[in-house]
Amino acid sequence: MPDFQENPKMSKPNILVAQSGGPSMVINQSLVGAVFAALDTPGAGRVWGAKHGVQGVLDEAFVDFRKIPRQHLARVAATPSSALGSVRKKPSPEVCARILEKLRKHEITHFFYIGGNDTAETAHLLHEAALAEKHPLRCFHIPKTIDNDLLLNDHTPGYASAARFVACALMGDNLDNLALGGVKIDVIMGRHAGFLTAAAALGRCHDDDGPHLLYFPERAFDPERFCADVSATMKRLGRCVVAVSEGIADAEGQPVAARFSTEVDAHGNRQLSGSGALGDYLAQLVKEKCGISRVRADTLGYLQRGFPGVASTVDAEEARLAGARAVGAALAGGVESGSIAIRRKPGKKYAVEYAVVPLRRVAKNTRHMPAAFINKAGNNVTQAFIDYARPLVGALPKCARLAQVKEKEEAT
Amino acid sequence: MPDFQENPKMSKPNILVAQSGGPSMVINQSLVGAVFAALDTPGAGRVWGAKHGVQGVLDEAFVDFRKIPRQHLARVAATPSSALGSVRKKPSPEVCARILEKLRKHEITHFFYIGGNDTAETAHLLHEAALAEKHPLRCFHIPKTIDNDLLLNDHTPGYASAARFVACALMGDNLDNLALGGVKIDVIMGRHAGFLTAAAALGRCHDDDGPHLLYFPERAFDPERFCADVSATMKRLGRCVVAVSEGIADAEGQPVAARFSTEVDAHGNRQLSGSGALGDYLAQLVKEKCGISRVRADTLGYLQRGFPGVASTVDAEEARLAGARAVGAALAGGVESGSIAIRRKPGKKYAVEYAVVPLRRVAKNTRHMPAAFINKAGNNVTQAFIDYARPLVGALPKCARLAQVKEKEEAT
Repeated sequence: MPDFQENPKMSKPNILVAQSGGPSMVINQSLVGAVFAALDTPGAGRVWGAKHGVQGVLDEAFVDFRKIPRQHLARVAATPSSALGSVRKKPSPEVCARILEKLRKHEITHFFYIGGNDTAETAHLLHEAALAEKHPLRCFHIPKTIDNDLLLNDHTPGYASAARFVACALMGDNLDNLALGGVKIDVIMGRHAGFLTAAAALGRCHDDDGPHLLYFPERAFDPERFCADVSATMKRLGRCVVAVSEGIADAEGQPVAARFSTEVDAHGNRQLSGSGALGDYLAQLVKEKCGISRVRADTLGYLQRGFPGVASTVDAEEARLAGARAVGAALAGGVESGSIAIRRKPGKKYAVEYAVVPLRRVAKNTRHMPAAFINKAGNNVTQAFIDYARPLVGALPKCARLAQVKEKEEAT
Repeated sequence: MPDFQENPKMSKPNILVAQSGGPSMVINQSLVGAVFAALDTPGAGRVWGAKHGVQGVLDEAFVDFRKIPRQHLARVAATPSSALGSVRKKPSPEVCARILEKLRKHEITHFFYIGGNDTAETAHLLHEAALAEKHPLRCFHIPKTIDNDLLLNDHTPGYASAARFVACALMGDNLDNLALGGVKIDVIMGRHAGFLTAAAALGRCHDDDGPHLLYFPERAFDPERFCADVSATMKRLGRCVVAVSEGIADAEGQPVAARFSTEVDAHGNRQLSGSGALGDYLAQLVKEKCGISRVRADTLGYLQRGFPGVASTVDAEEARLAGARAVGAALAGGVESGSIAIRRKPGKKYAVEYAVVPLRRVAKNTRHMPAAFINKAGNNVTQAFIDYARPLVGALPKCARLAQVKEKEEAT
């Protein structure tokens, strides 16, 4: 039984939830999962949301979830993007103090922040500031990142749905390339981790299906090697589909896309998305160095994190539960802060469990793809990755080729 | 009764189908619609496909559809892209003569070519060449274009599915922009016609939903006017989503994107797709001229024509029927060539009929958006467009915003 229910003198828990960082297709599932868990807790007080993350706390721009019909919240849960609004803000010590002041004013006792590692960092900073002030605020981080790059997690809510989008996109692009030939380059989100780019391989059905080449931030990107790979694939198949992370970097760790952007956010991240420059650079490289005329580049862009109707069912369920578990763990007492982590249970059948892990272990850190997921040449995924990711994205649309019956059906 | 069935001395019709130009999500429905109609015709002879359009005729690279199980063909029909392979080839008189020679060799009597206005032009050239040679070849064009720009058609197979993708993409992008603010620019396919860009408006649910501004090839693009529009929207809403056709052109008719490309295809079309350059140019323009810091641009690219799982049901059915009707009309005799056109029946309930129209009327010509579909300012669609396009794309995913309950739910 939660400690505030055991002790009638203890003040009611007043809950505030917020969202931060890049949206995802299922971050509203986590929001509604947390909100429903809070609403379902007997004795809970306020169940509020802050608009645009900690900025909404500073602005006292709150949403009272007790006044919103549950049916409407259920529809919000199934909607992509961050319904409360998002923010990219790393609070300074002074800003932390002002946030705490606002939380005290509104008697907020429990703060839940949904987002990636930058969001976890903010929750951690806020909790440290509260500890220093002896302000009894409980801070919990609910994981969300399409990059799948949080430490201590098997995978993170948001990843599987974005992975599903990428797998479908590359499945379609492979068929397009099969029809018209040439080289097609697709730039996929992922600053430091290649998990989402790797998902491009999940739609492959036949041996010669693309993407034929994949490049990840985990391996140094060498333009000459890249051109040699493309030429070899063109020679073998007469066509080539390439999936490349926006975060590919040279041997010195300098992102290739950073050459085309000067914009840096509050957490020190340089803008990589929302521009076609990296794809166009790679296409130009292939045209010039490989002497191939038909080269096309697409940057999948923001569609990866917000396309309605393609969310993974597993992802939606897990995101909802991650939100609920955070509230459950926080209200049960025992820990004053933490991040919810998803762990895969051993065994053949896919199953997960949720754990509370220390905020500081998740904050700011980045998990990279395990070496076992990348082939030796550094330009493809391994079966280990496919086995890891397949249960997350669910069944993909079925595609059939005429080429399957090519040999025996050819006349003349 | 088809004339070859009435006259037992007449040789069996031998049918060849091919695909050309850019793929779509439902061009294989037209292929399979034509093939099934041919297979179902008593007395029909060969039912073949040519790989990569007329190139496959020259190469004698054929597929015998009688040898492929119908179940497999049904799966091919539901698969995006051109299953036979495609080509962009405008045959010279010499090449036409060689194609006719190959068709004679294999006793092909009926040729069906699925594609857009360039494809119709090739079918027309081939039929004219056959007439000149007194070669009794029947040539029919089966319409396909996501651009929706064929004359004499209410709309064309392929458009509705691409429109559905664009509507969903902008629906998600609007929510993303609502969460993080700033300016988002989406570049959408469409060389001379803005129908596909216009479809970006179909996902709007609330008065302040994006896209807030839309620009089409039908109206001269003025960078200053564009920047003023964006600034006004930012002032009004604090955010702005823009949908812009890849084919927007200046007052002299020069495509803006043509500045960034030198590649030209066999039909004289300059490469506009497969590059993020136009979006990046517009984003830079807004950053510099409007003084807005967060500006992002995505180019929706090839996903618009080949994303598995989002095809419109209406589009799939109509594409299938257009293929079937072409074969039906050709084998019934009476006309030696033609293009299948989709016409909308008058009345409140959506319904269409199929007509055979002269090849030369469709060949090469481009249909533009009616003036009634574009607002006076030239930066948005009208209700007339929404009423036109809504029945084509079908029901879109439902999205719900917290902002709907904003006013009365705000605490403080």
